[in-house]
Amino acid sequence: MTESHAAIQGDDALTEADRLGLYRVLLSRRDVRGQFLPDPIADAVLARILVAAHHAPSVGFMQPWSFILVRSPEVRTRIKQAFTQANDEAAALFKGDSQATYRSLKLEGILESPVNICVTCDRDRAGPVVLGRTHIPTMDLYSTVCAVENLWLAARAEGLGLGWVSIISEPALKDILGLPDNVAWARSAISSPSRNWKPKAGANAWI
Amino acid sequence: MTESHAAIQGDDALTEADRLGLYRVLLSRRDVRGQFLPDPIADAVLARILVAAHHAPSVGFMQPWSFILVRSPEVRTRIKQAFTQANDEAAALFKGDSQATYRSLKLEGILESPVNICVTCDRDRAGPVVLGRTHIPTMDLYSTVCAVENLWLAARAEGLGLGWVSIISEPALKDILGLPDNVAWARSAISSPSRNWKPKAGANAWI
Repeated sequence: MTESHAAIQGDDALTEADRLGLYRVLLSRRDVRGQFLPDPIADAVLARILVAAHHAPSVGFMQPWSFILVRSPEVRTRIKQAFTQANDEAAALFKGDSQATYRSLKLEGILESPVNICVTCDRDRAGPVVLGRTHIPTMDLYSTVCAVENLWLAARAEGLGLGWVSIISEPALKDILGLPDNVAWARSAISSPSRNWKPKAGANAWI
Repeated sequence: MTESHAAIQGDDALTEADRLGLYRVLLSRRDVRGQFLPDPIADAVLARILVAAHHAPSVGFMQPWSFILVRSPEVRTRIKQAFTQANDEAAALFKGDSQATYRSLKLEGILESPVNICVTCDRDRAGPVVLGRTHIPTMDLYSTVCAVENLWLAARAEGLGLGWVSIISEPALKDILGLPDNVAWARSAISSPSRNWKPKAGANAWI
């Protein structure tokens, strides 16, 4: 960052180290689906990555997201079952050799990871007319995706692995978590932080 | 980051400065709609923020995004007209005092900023069956939103202001930019980088 940039930014000036830090995190972020360690993640670390997510941009400052930490083995077993059903349906869509390849991939870490994070979007949180959402009603969903990306980057910076599990039926997930039909919409993001980070190993649906 | 974290991360270890840099960028990012300077942005800076966007996660490694740099004053004038029409329609949805407040807000910097960035999502880029997108077809759009968030964070780290203009008709924007109906889908993100950064000034639809 040049001196003139810093001058323009005033109190909000960032340093060269900040700028490089952002790029190093961005370029080394990966989707992690395996090699999770079962060790619990410190509350302070979880809090930091959730603070990062809460600082995402949101249309009309709607902040439609919530984050559900799912630790219960029973609930995660039900989520894993919903994944398995969806994954079998997905595999059937791939033909020939690619189906065998698909079935060999490890696409989730729902039970191995110490915690799942389900990100929801409350589509009614700001009433029927939201500044900036008048022409594209899905802007609230896109705001929530920005929060997921922030969460992902912060997890990477904390040395945690995280993957976005999108192979699941949203109605099934809503049912498992008891989310209201008319208020909250279940984002399908089951994020599985881990202390293990080997981005080059394993097959990933998201890279 | 503790020493054990660094050991686990191996070659991909980040430093404490990287972690803090990410958080400083995340927490100081804002939506910027005004006070844009007309000075051109160096190609090297634009390239860096686009590299950051290209490193977003994408479902099935689909990378469905493209980035259209719109510098032409004529094209931007047409985009501004499309915004103005949508904004008038939006204002009518607000009643009483809130309509006057809405009309007083500065919600775009399409003409003042040196460049607009239109982010598109090619929904067919990876064929009909995409790993991870079998149950939620909009995962490609969400991938593109992750790229927008990366772009936003990198812009902030470079001292550039950026806002996501969502008050626009997507078909109108596609028509202006000549995007094919059957291949590309116009994300409504007209991003307006600027060298001016005063996050506390002005009214923002996204914060």
